[in-house]
Amino acid sequence: MDLFDFQIIAEDPTGARCGILRTPHGILETPNFIFCGTRGSIKGLTIAQVKEAGAQIILANTYHMHIQPGEKTVETLGGLHRMMGWDGPMLTDSGGFQVFSLQYGGVVREIKSCRSLPGKKSLIKVSEEGALFRSYYDGSSRMLTPEKSIQIQRSLGADIILPLDECTPAHLDNKSLRASTDRSHRWERRSLEEFLRSDTGTQALYGIVQGGTDESLRGESCAFVSNESFFGQAIGGSLGINRAQMMDVISMVGAMKHPTKPTHLLGIGGVSDILHGVRCRMDTFDCVHPTRLARHGGALVPREIAIGSEHINLKNAKYARDPSPIDGNCTCYACRTASRGYIHHLLKSGELLGGQLLTIHNITFMMRLMANIRTAIRQKNFYQFTQQNIFPVPI
Amino acid sequence: MDLFDFQIIAEDPTGARCGILRTPHGILETPNFIFCGTRGSIKGLTIAQVKEAGAQIILANTYHMHIQPGEKTVETLGGLHRMMGWDGPMLTDSGGFQVFSLQYGGVVREIKSCRSLPGKKSLIKVSEEGALFRSYYDGSSRMLTPEKSIQIQRSLGADIILPLDECTPAHLDNKSLRASTDRSHRWERRSLEEFLRSDTGTQALYGIVQGGTDESLRGESCAFVSNESFFGQAIGGSLGINRAQMMDVISMVGAMKHPTKPTHLLGIGGVSDILHGVRCRMDTFDCVHPTRLARHGGALVPREIAIGSEHINLKNAKYARDPSPIDGNCTCYACRTASRGYIHHLLKSGELLGGQLLTIHNITFMMRLMANIRTAIRQKNFYQFTQQNIFPVPI
Repeated sequence: MDLFDFQIIAEDPTGARCGILRTPHGILETPNFIFCGTRGSIKGLTIAQVKEAGAQIILANTYHMHIQPGEKTVETLGGLHRMMGWDGPMLTDSGGFQVFSLQYGGVVREIKSCRSLPGKKSLIKVSEEGALFRSYYDGSSRMLTPEKSIQIQRSLGADIILPLDECTPAHLDNKSLRASTDRSHRWERRSLEEFLRSDTGTQALYGIVQGGTDESLRGESCAFVSNESFFGQAIGGSLGINRAQMMDVISMVGAMKHPTKPTHLLGIGGVSDILHGVRCRMDTFDCVHPTRLARHGGALVPREIAIGSEHINLKNAKYARDPSPIDGNCTCYACRTASRGYIHHLLKSGELLGGQLLTIHNITFMMRLMANIRTAIRQKNFYQFTQQNIFPVPI
Repeated sequence: MDLFDFQIIAEDPTGARCGILRTPHGILETPNFIFCGTRGSIKGLTIAQVKEAGAQIILANTYHMHIQPGEKTVETLGGLHRMMGWDGPMLTDSGGFQVFSLQYGGVVREIKSCRSLPGKKSLIKVSEEGALFRSYYDGSSRMLTPEKSIQIQRSLGADIILPLDECTPAHLDNKSLRASTDRSHRWERRSLEEFLRSDTGTQALYGIVQGGTDESLRGESCAFVSNESFFGQAIGGSLGINRAQMMDVISMVGAMKHPTKPTHLLGIGGVSDILHGVRCRMDTFDCVHPTRLARHGGALVPREIAIGSEHINLKNAKYARDPSPIDGNCTCYACRTASRGYIHHLLKSGELLGGQLLTIHNITFMMRLMANIRTAIRQKNFYQFTQQNIFPVPI
C-alpha cells in the first residue's frame, strides 16, 4: 500500500473541499494549516507545547537547515522528525524561496511594494544549472540545483517535499516571466527525475505552479504540474502587487489546477486570505504570520473582539490592567492561565514568555479556525461561514 | 492555626538539616532551591513547564515589579500568584539589592573584583529615611524606604517577604561597615513595625543578617535577627572578595545564626556552594545561576559528565553531531526528547528553544540535587554525599 494518499471526502457548493491526506507520519484532515519551524523549531515553543496547542503538521525551511546545521548533521541526528521530536506530518520547501528572497525581498514586501530589497545581495548568479548564493552564516558560496535540493530534502526526511523553482518578483516583464516559468518547469522536471531516482516511497513530491499574475502562463503551469507525476501541487510564484491581485490570482489558479491532487498555497496565512483560498479549493496553507504576529504582541481573535481587524495587540496600554484572558471562549493554555494584563507586562518587560503565550494562543486559534472550516464544508454552509468570519481588511 | 510554620525533622552529624516549611501556598521541604522569576516570569518557560520540571518555590524581585508593571497593577491582576499562575510558595525581596547593585555592581562582580560598576549611577542618595534612586524604565526618581518596601510587598502578595537593608560592597572600611550594619538594623526594625502594623498572617517576614566579612558585626547581626520577631532569617550583605572568603563567612554565620528559624542564603546557586551552605545549616537558596547559565548554553550535569566543572556548554562544537541527551540518567523533558546536537543547533541558530530546553534541564537538575541532599541528610551520610558531589572549583 502506498504510504501517501489523498481523498476528497466532502465538497461544498462554493467548491471548498475536505480531504484526508495520508502520510507516513499520520493522517492530516484538510483544509489545514502548516506552522513554520523555520530553523528546526517553532520559535519559542517545545514540540510538546506545539502539540498541545493542536498543530497537526509543521514545516522546516531547507535553506536554513542546509546552512546550519547542514543536512548531513540533521541526518546524523536521525532526520528532522527525530531531531525535533515531531512525529506528525512535516513539509520542507526546496530552499529556492529563501535564496531568491534574499535578492528580491520577502512576500509581504513583494506584495506591498514590488521593490527589491536594499543592501547586500546574497544571490550571486542564476543559471540553467541552478542558483549560486552566498551563505549568510559563513560567507561561503553555495550552489543550489534541482538535484541538490532533492538530495538535501532526502537527508532532512520530511514527508512532503518541494522541487526547486525560480521565485521571481511581481514587476517582471512578460518575456522574463515566460522565460522564468519555463525554467521553473525544467527545474521541476529535473527535481522529479532526481526524486524518482531515489524514491523509496517515504516522501512525496509536490509540483509548483508558477506563472506570476499571467493567466495564460498560470494555465500552462497548471497543465505542466497536472501532467507530471507529482503527488500534489503547490501554488507558488508572485501573487501580484497588492491584495486584490493576490485574491484574483488565487481564484484563477484555483479554477485551472489539477482537480484532485492535494494543493498547498504557499505563504498565505491571514484569516480572510485562507477563507478565500479554501473557496478556491486549496487544501493546506503555511505562513509565519500566526507565530510571528505572536512574537510582536498580536493575538488572533474572533471578529467580535477585534473590531475591523483579525488581531489585537497586547502591547497596547489599554490592556495593562485588564484581568480578562485574550479570548474568554478560547481553551488554550494562555487563555486558561494568563490575563491580558500579565501578557502586556511580559511584552513590556521583554520577557519571552509573552510571545510564547501568544504563540500558543495563535496556533490554537488557527487550528480551531481550520476545524471550523472543515465542519462548515461538511455541513455545506461554507459560504455563510465566510460571511460570518471574513474581515474587511483594507486592500 | 498559624499559616506559617517551620519544623526541623532530621539532622545530620555535619549540622545539615531537613525541615518542613509550611506556607499559605503549600509545604516546602528543605533544603530547597528558589528559582528566580525576576520580572514575574521564569525566563522562557510557562508556569506549567516550571512545575513539570519540579520547582517548588519561586521568587520575584520587588524592584523590577515596582518599576514595571507597578505593584498596584499586580494587585489589580490578583497579586503575583494569580498573575503568574503560580500556586506554590513564593518569596519577594525588599528591592534594596537591585537599588544598591545599580550602584556597586552585582554579587558576581562584587566577589570577583570588589570594584564598583562603571557608567551611570542609578542610586541617587542614601539617607536614614531610605534610598533615592532613578527608575531605569522612565528616569523618574523614586524613594525606597523600609515602610514602602513592605507596602509594595503587601501588594505583590508573596508568602515570604524581606525587610529593606543596605547592601554594601566588600571593600567598605570598618567604620562604614559598622554604620551600615547599624542602619540596616534600624531599617529592618522599621520594616518589622510596618509589617506588624498590617499583618493578617498571610505573609511571613524574614530578618536579614548583615555585617559583611566582620565576625563581630555578623555576630551582632545574628543576635539582632534572633531577638526580633522575624519568622525566619536571610543571610545577606557582602560575603567577601573571593570564593574562599565567601565560604568562611557562610561558615561563620552558620555557627552564630538563630538555631531553629528557617534560614535563607541569598544569591548562592553553585552546586558546591549549596553543599557548603547546607553543611552550615542553611535551608533555602536562590540564584539566577541555573536559569541564566541555561540561556547561555550551559547544562548542569553530574561530575562524571563534566570533568572539573559543574556544567557543560552545549555551544561547544564537539556537541554538533552528538545524538545523545544531555544526561542519559536525567528524566527531564529536554533529556527525554532532545539530543545535544539539536540543542547545539538551536543555540547556534539563536532559537529560543535551546535556552528553554536547558532551563527545563537545569531546574530539574537542581531539584534532583536538593532531593538527594535531603535524602542524604535523613540517612545521616551528608558528608559522604558532599565528597561524591563536590567539585574542585577554582577559588
